[in-house]
Amino acid sequence: MLSNPRSERVRSVRSLGRRAVRQRQGLFVVEGPQAVRELLSYAGHAASDLYLTSSSAERHTGIVELAEGLSAQSAETVRRPESASRQDPGRRRLRIHLCSDEVLAAMTDTAHPQGMIAVATPIDVPLAETLSAVGDGFVVVLTNVRDPGNAGTVLRAADAFGAAAVLVSDASVDIYNPKVVRSTVGSLFHLPVSVGTPIPELLAACQQAGLRVLAADGSGETSLPDVDLSVPHAWVMGNEAWGLESEVRDLCDNVVSIPIVRAESLNLAMAATVCLHASASAR
Amino acid sequence: MLSNPRSERVRSVRSLGRRAVRQRQGLFVVEGPQAVRELLSYAGHAASDLYLTSSSAERHTGIVELAEGLSAQSAETVRRPESASRQDPGRRRLRIHLCSDEVLAAMTDTAHPQGMIAVATPIDVPLAETLSAVGDGFVVVLTNVRDPGNAGTVLRAADAFGAAAVLVSDASVDIYNPKVVRSTVGSLFHLPVSVGTPIPELLAACQQAGLRVLAADGSGETSLPDVDLSVPHAWVMGNEAWGLESEVRDLCDNVVSIPIVRAESLNLAMAATVCLHASASAR
Repeated sequence: MLSNPRSERVRSVRSLGRRAVRQRQGLFVVEGPQAVRELLSYAGHAASDLYLTSSSAERHTGIVELAEGLSAQSAETVRRPESASRQDPGRRRLRIHLCSDEVLAAMTDTAHPQGMIAVATPIDVPLAETLSAVGDGFVVVLTNVRDPGNAGTVLRAADAFGAAAVLVSDASVDIYNPKVVRSTVGSLFHLPVSVGTPIPELLAACQQAGLRVLAADGSGETSLPDVDLSVPHAWVMGNEAWGLESEVRDLCDNVVSIPIVRAESLNLAMAATVCLHASASAR
Repeated sequence: MLSNPRSERVRSVRSLGRRAVRQRQGLFVVEGPQAVRELLSYAGHAASDLYLTSSSAERHTGIVELAEGLSAQSAETVRRPESASRQDPGRRRLRIHLCSDEVLAAMTDTAHPQGMIAVATPIDVPLAETLSAVGDGFVVVLTNVRDPGNAGTVLRAADAFGAAAVLVSDASVDIYNPKVVRSTVGSLFHLPVSVGTPIPELLAACQQAGLRVLAADGSGETSLPDVDLSVPHAWVMGNEAWGLESEVRDLCDNVVSIPIVRAESLNLAMAATVCLHASASAR
């Protein structure tokens, strides 16, 4: 049982709230039972440490079983190194730590971490890999999205409506920001995500992969119902006010708006929800 | 220029953050330039006091002109009392107060009030009045919605997609909660809103008004694309996890779900956005 809220380990987990530390250490935090459950279920290979209070462990026996399974599984792959190394050479064993309420609270800025935090290695995949998985589906491109809650909601919508992948440009919020992770409520682990490509390169890669590139923008000259969403396509979602820079719009095949009564009443998350629902409905 | 952050007036405005005080005084606060502009433009009769810093007044000359127009207009109606009293007997003159940054900051809990706060009288209208305005349109019913941000987003979606009215049941968040007002970004003033009716009575009134009552619920047996949204209807939106109590579902004509890949990835605001967009698209 970890009980010292001022230990080096606690400080180290808490420091993952800062982007520079996350990048240096190659780790990020996942807070709360729902997100942790999805991490362990969909991206268990990335989970390195699970911290939970004993009351949380009692309440969430399903998660504890998942975690123990990943521990045991790792232990087994340690005994059979050849078969394991072929699947995932970087695999590490998930470590489970019971800790006091004070330790858990000290590990995070969150007011209610709900007794559970996991530390994981990045789950993003190379751009080429996400694009090769698209088939006749659709993807979401995020550029210049700064608000963690908005980015999280777009990821949830991508998940809900079956996008093949999410591609995040270099000028957007860090998807490993604890607030983004929290607001995706696990969707971050459900579909492949790539990060860090500059937007011109990103859009060119989409077009080379045979995707029709659609800018979602309140000023768009094409109305959503007039767009053929049955072909493979990429939705490009820009900043919070639901608008894209003209340089980005110029790189897209179409600039698409949603017919609405009052333009200023839609925000990015709502626009993304409508566009991605339309894509799902078209197939 | 108001410069004493500890004055009775400042305390009085700040106390409107509490529901009991709002109800007792029959007043609520509207924070930030965008929401204030919409208040003055769409519900100017309800605005009683405008507090702003001099830098904010310089930045937002359009709002100051609107406010001065309402002041002047009121002054004029004072000179011609007969014509005014026919339109709005309870009309009060809008008072404009320049105040120091410290005064404005002390009036609110908001980290960034952006130099402008208005105090207004309630803008809700009787249920019968909202229902008589529906025609062949559609309305939104909120029940058991507790989170201010979610309620605000549903109001924005109702506004964006042209709902005729929003009907809030007695068991939902107070629409005059500063967080709700803020998160509607002015939509609260764009369409008629009624509050306080118990949900069984509210749904019965909708049905008597000829509306088809549709529950939006993740467990719904009817799929959204199969619902005829060309007839007048009411969308019933429940709690944050996008679900309704069975007693409420039983009172509705249909329980409607959105076809999605993963149910847990939609929240109330997203579900409302999709349903209301579908209603707008059907007409």
